[in-house]
Amino acid sequence: MESNLFQLQYAIDTFYFLVCGALVMWMAAGFAMLESGLVRGKNTTEILTKNVALFAVACTMYLVCGYAIMYGGNLFLGDIALVDVDGVLGNFGSRDGGFTGDAIYSGASDFFFQVVFVATAMSIVSGAVAERMKLWAFLLFAVFMTGFIYPMEGAWTWGGADVFGLFNLGDLGFSDFAGSGIVHMAGAAAALAGVLLLGPRKGKYGPNGEIRAIPGANLPLAALGTFILWMGWFGFNGGSVLKLGDIASANAVAMVFLNTNAAAAGGAIAALITARLMFGKADLTMLLNGAIAGLVVITAEPSTPSALIATLWGALGGTLVVFSIITLDKLRIDDPVGAISAHGVCGLLGLLLVPVTNGDASLGGQLIGALTIFVWVFAASLLVWSILKLTMGIRVTEEEEYEGVDISECGMEAYPEFVTSKP
Amino acid sequence: MESNLFQLQYAIDTFYFLVCGALVMWMAAGFAMLESGLVRGKNTTEILTKNVALFAVACTMYLVCGYAIMYGGNLFLGDIALVDVDGVLGNFGSRDGGFTGDAIYSGASDFFFQVVFVATAMSIVSGAVAERMKLWAFLLFAVFMTGFIYPMEGAWTWGGADVFGLFNLGDLGFSDFAGSGIVHMAGAAAALAGVLLLGPRKGKYGPNGEIRAIPGANLPLAALGTFILWMGWFGFNGGSVLKLGDIASANAVAMVFLNTNAAAAGGAIAALITARLMFGKADLTMLLNGAIAGLVVITAEPSTPSALIATLWGALGGTLVVFSIITLDKLRIDDPVGAISAHGVCGLLGLLLVPVTNGDASLGGQLIGALTIFVWVFAASLLVWSILKLTMGIRVTEEEEYEGVDISECGMEAYPEFVTSKP
Amino acid sequence: MESNLFQLQYAIDTFYFLVCGALVMWMAAGFAMLESGLVRGKNTTEILTKNVALFAVACTMYLVCGYAIMYGGNLFLGDIALVDVDGVLGNFGSRDGGFTGDAIYSGASDFFFQVVFVATAMSIVSGAVAERMKLWAFLLFAVFMTGFIYPMEGAWTWGGADVFGLFNLGDLGFSDFAGSGIVHMAGAAAALAGVLLLGPRKGKYGPNGEIRAIPGANLPLAALGTFILWMGWFGFNGGSVLKLGDIASANAVAMVFLNTNAAAAGGAIAALITARLMFGKADLTMLLNGAIAGLVVITAEPSTPSALIATLWGALGGTLVVFSIITLDKLRIDDPVGAISAHGVCGLLGLLLVPVTNGDASLGGQLIGALTIFVWVFAASLLVWSILKLTMGIRVTEEEEYEGVDISECGMEAYPEFVTSKP
Repeated sequence: MESNLFQLQYAIDTFYFLVCGALVMWMAAGFAMLESGLVRGKNTTEILTKNVALFAVACTMYLVCGYAIMYGGNLFLGDIALVDVDGVLGNFGSRDGGFTGDAIYSGASDFFFQVVFVATAMSIVSGAVAERMKLWAFLLFAVFMTGFIYPMEGAWTWGGADVFGLFNLGDLGFSDFAGSGIVHMAGAAAALAGVLLLGPRKGKYGPNGEIRAIPGANLPLAALGTFILWMGWFGFNGGSVLKLGDIASANAVAMVFLNTNAAAAGGAIAALITARLMFGKADLTMLLNGAIAGLVVITAEPSTPSALIATLWGALGGTLVVFSIITLDKLRIDDPVGAISAHGVCGLLGLLLVPVTNGDASLGGQLIGALTIFVWVFAASLLVWSILKLTMGIRVTEEEEYEGVDISECGMEAYPEFVTSKP
Repeated sequence: MESNLFQLQYAIDTFYFLVCGALVMWMAAGFAMLESGLVRGKNTTEILTKNVALFAVACTMYLVCGYAIMYGGNLFLGDIALVDVDGVLGNFGSRDGGFTGDAIYSGASDFFFQVVFVATAMSIVSGAVAERMKLWAFLLFAVFMTGFIYPMEGAWTWGGADVFGLFNLGDLGFSDFAGSGIVHMAGAAAALAGVLLLGPRKGKYGPNGEIRAIPGANLPLAALGTFILWMGWFGFNGGSVLKLGDIASANAVAMVFLNTNAAAAGGAIAALITARLMFGKADLTMLLNGAIAGLVVITAEPSTPSALIATLWGALGGTLVVFSIITLDKLRIDDPVGAISAHGVCGLLGLLLVPVTNGDASLGGQLIGALTIFVWVFAASLLVWSILKLTMGIRVTEEEEYEGVDISECGMEAYPEFVTSKP
Repeated sequence: MESNLFQLQYAIDTFYFLVCGALVMWMAAGFAMLESGLVRGKNTTEILTKNVALFAVACTMYLVCGYAIMYGGNLFLGDIALVDVDGVLGNFGSRDGGFTGDAIYSGASDFFFQVVFVATAMSIVSGAVAERMKLWAFLLFAVFMTGFIYPMEGAWTWGGADVFGLFNLGDLGFSDFAGSGIVHMAGAAAALAGVLLLGPRKGKYGPNGEIRAIPGANLPLAALGTFILWMGWFGFNGGSVLKLGDIASANAVAMVFLNTNAAAAGGAIAALITARLMFGKADLTMLLNGAIAGLVVITAEPSTPSALIATLWGALGGTLVVFSIITLDKLRIDDPVGAISAHGVCGLLGLLLVPVTNGDASLGGQLIGALTIFVWVFAASLLVWSILKLTMGIRVTEEEEYEGVDISECGMEAYPEFVTSKP
C-alpha cells in the first residue's frame, strides 16, 4: 500500500513534468511563428529553417554534453563527465530529482523538461540576428551555446556549482525560479553579442540618424506565435515548481499558472496603453512584446506574489519593453523582433523584483547573479561569434541581404506565388 | 497514509484543472486565428489586436472583480465583495471547490480555469463586430462585459445565486454543464446588441436587397483557428466535470472528451453536406462553422449522451448553423464570422436538448434560463454599447472603413508586402 | 483505502490517455497546416476542407464500426459486431483496457485515444493525392479506409486477431509499439494506391523526363504543421505505453517522450545536412520532412533504445527520406508533400529497426508484419480507389486542375485578396 501510494506519486510527478515539457517544446513553434511574422517575406524561409534546426541542435547537444555539464558533477571545467550521465547512452532510470535532490520522479522526464529550456534560450537569439546572418554560422553558434555556454551558467545557478570555483550564487541569495535570467537574459546576452558584431540591417538607420521602421510581413503569424508562447509558458513556469504530488506543491503550481497568466495580461495592457500614448495608435507588435515582457518578468518568481502583484509586475515589464525597444533603436542596436528588450532587459527586471516577494532572495545576490550570467554569456558568445566571423564569416553579402537570405541560404521563397513589393 | 492519499487526490484534481484551463486559454488563439482568417486583409491587424487585448482585459477584470461577483457572495448587487476574494490580493489557499462546495482542489486552479471562460465569452463578440467597430470602444465594452455582465449571469447559474433575488434557476431545473448558454449564447447576445447598434459593413447589402459575400483573406488561418478551438474544447467541457480523481469522475471526464469530439465531427459533416446540397460546393467556411456549432451544442450536456447521440446533436447544430447564417444575412444582421449563429443560435439548441438525456433538467427550466441569460446580457450590453455610441462613438468613419481599420486604429498593415486587390 | 488508491490510479491512467489523445487530435491540425503550406495557393482551400472533413469522417466511422472491427471480436469477417461495442450506442463503462486486457482505465478514454490514430492514418493520404483529386471521391475513400481497411489491419496487430484466420502476427514476433507500420506505413500504402491510379499533376514531369519543382505557397504554415506534429507525437508515442500509474510505466512513458524528441531532432539535422550536401542549400522542406521521418522511425519502438540510439535512428530516417523523395520523383510517383517517403518508407525502416533494441521482436516477424500490412492496405485501397475511379471518377478535369481545385470543389479561394502569379 505505502509502496503503491509512492508509485502513484512518482507517476503523477513524472507526468506533470512531461506535460509541462511538451508545453515548453511548443514554445519553439511560438518563437518560429513570432519571428517569421516579424521579418520580411524575403527572409522568412531562412528564419523558419533556423528555428527548426536550432531546436534540433539544442536537443542533441544538450543530450551529448549539456545536461552532464549542467547537472553532472562539480562544475569547474576539470571534472566534467561529458557523456557519463546515465541515460545519455543508456536508459535513464528512476532518479532522485537531479538538481533538487529530494524530488522523486523519472530521470528521463527531468531531462525532457530541461532540454526544452535550452532550446528556448537559443530561440531568443535567432530573432535578434535575423535578416542578415549566415545560417550555418548561426547553427554552429547554436552548437556552442546549447552544448556549453548555457550549461555552464546553468550549472552555477540551478546546478548549484561554484562559479569557476570562486563563489556560489545560491549562498549569496540569488534566486531565479524558472529562468528570467538563466534562460531569457542569457539568450538575450548571446543575441546582443551577435548583434554588435553583426551590425544593423542595411537601410535600418539612415545617414542622418533616422530610424526606419521595417514592418514584419505577416502579423497573424506574430500574434499566433505570442499566443503559443503564452500557452507554453504555463509549462515553463508551472513545471519549474518541480513537484506536484502533495497539497503544498499543487497549490504552488496552481498559483504559478495563475500568476503567469496575470503577468502576461498586465504586460499586454500596459504596452498597449504605453504605445497608444506615445505613438497615438494601438501598436500590435508592442502589444505582443508587452505580453512576452510580462511573462519574462514573472518568470523569476511566479510563486510568491499575489495575482494582483503579478499583474503589476507584468505591467512594469510591458511598459519597460516599449521604452527599451525605442532606446536600443536610438543606440543603433538593430533587433528585428525586440528580443533583447523583451527577454534581456525585462529578464533583468524580473530578477531585481524577486526580493520584493521572496524573502530568501537578496537584491545583492540578484545583482551579482545577473552580472555573472550576463558577463559569462556575453563574453563567451562574443568569443564564439568572433571566431566564426574571422573564419567563415557571420554576415551574408550586401547583395544577398538585398535579395533576401531565403534564396541565398535556402534556395526557396516562403511565399513564391504572392506578388510582393519587396522592401 | 490516509492523508497522503488525500494529498495526491488534491494534486491530481488541481493538475487536471490547470491542464484543462491551459487548453481553454488556447481557445483565445483559436478565435484570433479564425477571425483574422475570415476578415479582409485590411482589417487583420486590428482584429488580432482586439483578440490579444480582450484576453488580457478579461483576465484582469475577472481578477479585480468578476470572480468575486460570480462566486464571492449572495449575489444581488447589495453585498458584492469587490476585492474580497482571498487570492485576488493575497494568495489563494486551498479551497473547498469554490462553486461546488465539495470538490477539493487548489483555489488558484479554480480561478485559472474560470478566468479563461470569461475570455472565451468575450472572444465571441469580437468576430461579430469586426471590420467596422472602433478598437477602444470595443475594449471598453470588454471591461464591462468581463468585469460585470458575464459575472452576473454566471452568478445566477454556476454561482447558484438568485436572479435579482427573485428566483433561482437551479431550482427551476436549469442545467448548462459547460456553458452553451452561460458562455456561448451570452457572448452571442452581447455581440448581437453590438451588431444592431453598429449596422452592417459598407457594401455588405446592396440597395436592392442583394447580399454580397465578403470572403475572408486567409482561409488557412481560419481552419487553424477551428482546429485550435476543437482541441481547446476538450479542456472547456472536460474540465467542467470539476473533478477527476475517482472512478466515476474519471469516467465522466473521458465520456465528455469523447462526446465533445463526436459532436464536432457530426457538426462538420452535417454542415458540409448541407452546404453542398444548398450551394453545390464544399463550402469550407460552413464546414468550420459546422464543427464549432457541434461543439457549442454539446457543451450544455456532454456527459450523459451516448457517443452516437452526441454525433447526432452535433449534426443538428451543423445543419442549423448553415440556415441560421443565411437567415441572419436575410435579416441584414451582418456578422462577418458567423459567431451569432454558431454560438448563439446553436447555444440555445444545446440548452434545449439537455432534458433529452439529463433527467435533472426540465425544458421549462432550460427555456427560463436561456431567456434570463439572453435578456440580461442583451439588455445590459445594449445599454453599455449605447452609452459608448453616444459618448465616444463605436463605429469608425466611412473613409476609415474603406481604407481598413488596420491603418486608422493600429497604424500598421497585417501583410504590408503582399500586393492585394483591396475589396 | 485500497479501493481509494485504486480509484486514483484509474483516474490518473484515464487522464493520461485523454491528454495524450488530445495531443494526437492536434496532429490533425499539423497535417492540415503542413499540407496547406506545401500545395499551391489555388489548391489550398480544398486541402483544408479535406483535412477537416476527413478527421470528422474518421471519428464517425470508427465510432460506427471501426472500433468494433478492431477490438470487438475474433476478427475474421464472420463475427464482427458492427455496432455492438458498449459505448458506441450506450455509455462506455469502466473497461479492462480494451486491447491490453489488464490495464484499468475508462473505456471511453481508450476509444478517444484510438480514434485519433485512425484520423492520423487518413491524414497521411490527403497530402499525397493533393492538387488533382476530386474532393468527394477522397471523402468516400476515407469512409472505407477509416471504417474498414485500417480497422482490419489494426485488428490483426494491436487487436491480436489472426490474419484472415491464417496466422497470428504477434506469435511471429511482430512488434509495432505506436504504429510506424500500423498507422504510418498503412496511410502511405493507401496513398500510394491512390497516387498510382491518379497519375502525377500536370506539368510535374516534362516530356523529356525533367522533374519540375512545384514549390508550396506558404512555408510558414508548413513549418507550423511540422512543429504541431512534433508536439502531438509526444501523445502518439507516449500514450501508446497504455499505462502511467506505477514507477515502471511512468519511466517508460518518460523515456518515450525523450526518445521521440531525440529522434525528431536527429532526423531534422540529418536531412538538413544531407540536403545541403546534395543541393548546396539548407532545404527547409527537406528539414521538415527529416523531422517527420525521425518521428516515424522511432514510433515502432520508442521505449527500449537509449536517447542517443534514438537520435541515430531518427538520423537514419532523416537521411533516407531525402533519397526516397528523390527516388519517387524519378519513378514519376508524384507525392506533393513527400508523405509516402516520410510515412511509408521510413515507417518500414522503423519496423525493421525494432529487433535491434527489443528482444521480443524478430526480423522475420517484422518483415511478415510489414508485408501483411502493406499488401492488405495497398490491395484493399487499390480496389476502393478503382471502384471510385470507374464510377464517379477520382481526378478533376484538366481545366479544373489548371484553374485550381479551390474554385471547382469549394467555390472559394484561400487567399482571395493576394495577387498571385499562378504557377
